[in-house]
Amino acid sequence: MNAEIISVGTELLMGEIVDTNSSYLADELAKIGVDLHWATKVGDHPGRLEEAIERALDRSEITITTGGLGPTSDDLTRESIAAVLGEGMEVQDDLLAHLTSQFESRGVKMPATNIKQATLIPSAKVIPNPMGTAPGWWVEKNGHVIAAMPGPPREISHMWDNEVGPRLRSLNPEIAIVTRTLKTFGITEGGLDEMLSPLFESDNPNLGIYSKQDGIHLRAIASASTQGEAQALIEPMEREIRKIAGHAIWGEDDDTPVSAALDALSEKDLTLAIAEGFTGGLLSSTVLESASASGVLAGSIVVTGGDSDRLILGLSVADPDSPQPEDASNLALAARDRLRADIGLAMTPLVSRETGDSGPVGTTHIGVATSDEVFVRSGHYPTRRLRIRERAVTHALLELARCLETGSGGHESRWG
Amino acid sequence: MNAEIISVGTELLMGEIVDTNSSYLADELAKIGVDLHWATKVGDHPGRLEEAIERALDRSEITITTGGLGPTSDDLTRESIAAVLGEGMEVQDDLLAHLTSQFESRGVKMPATNIKQATLIPSAKVIPNPMGTAPGWWVEKNGHVIAAMPGPPREISHMWDNEVGPRLRSLNPEIAIVTRTLKTFGITEGGLDEMLSPLFESDNPNLGIYSKQDGIHLRAIASASTQGEAQALIEPMEREIRKIAGHAIWGEDDDTPVSAALDALSEKDLTLAIAEGFTGGLLSSTVLESASASGVLAGSIVVTGGDSDRLILGLSVADPDSPQPEDASNLALAARDRLRADIGLAMTPLVSRETGDSGPVGTTHIGVATSDEVFVRSGHYPTRRLRIRERAVTHALLELARCLETGSGGHESRWG
Repeated sequence: MNAEIISVGTELLMGEIVDTNSSYLADELAKIGVDLHWATKVGDHPGRLEEAIERALDRSEITITTGGLGPTSDDLTRESIAAVLGEGMEVQDDLLAHLTSQFESRGVKMPATNIKQATLIPSAKVIPNPMGTAPGWWVEKNGHVIAAMPGPPREISHMWDNEVGPRLRSLNPEIAIVTRTLKTFGITEGGLDEMLSPLFESDNPNLGIYSKQDGIHLRAIASASTQGEAQALIEPMEREIRKIAGHAIWGEDDDTPVSAALDALSEKDLTLAIAEGFTGGLLSSTVLESASASGVLAGSIVVTGGDSDRLILGLSVADPDSPQPEDASNLALAARDRLRADIGLAMTPLVSRETGDSGPVGTTHIGVATSDEVFVRSGHYPTRRLRIRERAVTHALLELARCLETGSGGHESRWG
Repeated sequence: MNAEIISVGTELLMGEIVDTNSSYLADELAKIGVDLHWATKVGDHPGRLEEAIERALDRSEITITTGGLGPTSDDLTRESIAAVLGEGMEVQDDLLAHLTSQFESRGVKMPATNIKQATLIPSAKVIPNPMGTAPGWWVEKNGHVIAAMPGPPREISHMWDNEVGPRLRSLNPEIAIVTRTLKTFGITEGGLDEMLSPLFESDNPNLGIYSKQDGIHLRAIASASTQGEAQALIEPMEREIRKIAGHAIWGEDDDTPVSAALDALSEKDLTLAIAEGFTGGLLSSTVLESASASGVLAGSIVVTGGDSDRLILGLSVADPDSPQPEDASNLALAARDRLRADIGLAMTPLVSRETGDSGPVGTTHIGVATSDEVFVRSGHYPTRRLRIRERAVTHALLELARCLETGSGGHESRWG
């Protein structure tokens, strides 16, 4: 099956909003074996919106629209679908009653303009939207499917998980899809591509390689007539990948660097203290973003290179422009002891002037202090841009997870 | 003039990459008065890519493509443009010599596949790309313009600023465009829309309203035959906006919450200490992202609610599940004094259980301690999601800037 996405909204064409919905849906479609051929952004303009829908019906089996289901006169997705299919929109009593009661429960009188959110055309069925006021439309006509979804990402992901995804999957009941994502760090896309090149020739499972913030991901997708057969197709490929690139794999599927680090800590019931220079608070905030971090983070400070380091940690980086690997171990030990935690995780400021063992400009040293050992790794992060610092955060978290899991350390820098 | 963007790359349709290029270009096109009517993502598939280009030539005056200019057999943008226009690609000696020398300077022999990056069709001129190996194509034919640009955002923004933007602007030499963005915080899009509703009727300058991470932005775009006339058109509208909504405006054009806060600090040569609960390090890392933060941040800690708060600050939040406004002032004072800074900025943990003056669940209290005063504001942040915490960071930074600039404070919560 092939599909097309139409993202509706003039704001998308004014550059003020990045269309993340289509990327999200593209990812989900791939997982259920639907090929996405086109994704178009179009403004709140009836002529162009109708043209886009018409074209999609012409060339694609499944059309997914996002946005344009709001109550205002600018929200034209329903009207455009109705016009293209030559059908009339009719108010549905049950939808209207539900919508009215939604407003009532918030103590607000429903504006008259919202009535169009309670309409359907004859070939449309409603897609419930418990996260918002705009229900979706599920249209099947002449062998084509149109799924019209609202714009807010929260509403889309809920509607996809509960309604649109399962319905699309059931259009192809004889096909079962299994996906497996393996996540690597510290290896380039080109290097991985070369190591695994014969595997990329395979059609089923199909193997994709994707550069992400937390490293290079490998995603295998297998399809067969049963879940078991698809699973059986994917297993040999996974084994092969692990044999060749296992040293670089840190997680799979929904694993994140934070979950890897927190799992390693909570397995041994350990608390964590952080002293971070280069990432300046981003490492701590990333840890705290996870609900399971509660109670794990004993304390965290930013290493500024100023007086506060000595005040809090009892030591400071001798030369903040040129931190040495031992600064990372000292900071990790001091964080562990002064902030009263089981484990200390530290990152030095970035090397801006090369001296001694600092490594080249742009180097950061990461220290992990456990109860009886200290590990140091170094990574090279050429700029202070957010993405680069996020990558250093990933590096530190995966280093922490690995030190706790394997106890392997030393000064060798395999990642970074 | 109207334009269409075609983003090329199968990876865009696999959901593994968000297409930020088209949003960037959409924003830039708006600033030079070009209407973007369509933006399409298409894979590395010759048939569909040619179809997209053909359609764009049919319905749009300017076509901008991004991506597909690499050296591999999957990179098909040049080939597709050539096919649609019925022209042949020819290797250009000067481009080839330049490309070869680029590889030589990196000590690498140029792979044969890269030769196609040195080609043009007769109706194309080269667009230099000093940031990468793939030059762009500038095609003018039958009254249509095609600008073919590479995919990496860094290369695109450089090529836009230096080549494509100026060339497109010069297509309309009789038109000068002036834009002015006013940035507000603490006011809803609906509220602002209502307050300013007559201004949105204006065609020139045209006024747009955009919900962004750091508040609601108002962008006025005026066009006239000279820069001065366009400026004269925009000024009365700006005065009117400032008269009506001035209390909510914190900056303009390239201002950011960080620049507003750092400007206010550096004007008075003040240092800053941070103690942050809810944002868990994100506030500090946001400050440190700015190059001008160097030396300003004296120290920063995460308020965890554990022992480390008392160890470092000499006090702790009595009930971390239910912080009170005075916790924010105490934390700000302690941060200022214990971390030896001129100004203390603090944010409590989030209220998860309502007691006393805590405010509802999801409240955070922000404290600013100057040399002789303490200000507290409160904001409501319903979840720990990154966007929500980023908004709290914005709130804290703008609060800091405002307290330093106006000295106005008290417990009234106008923003949040």
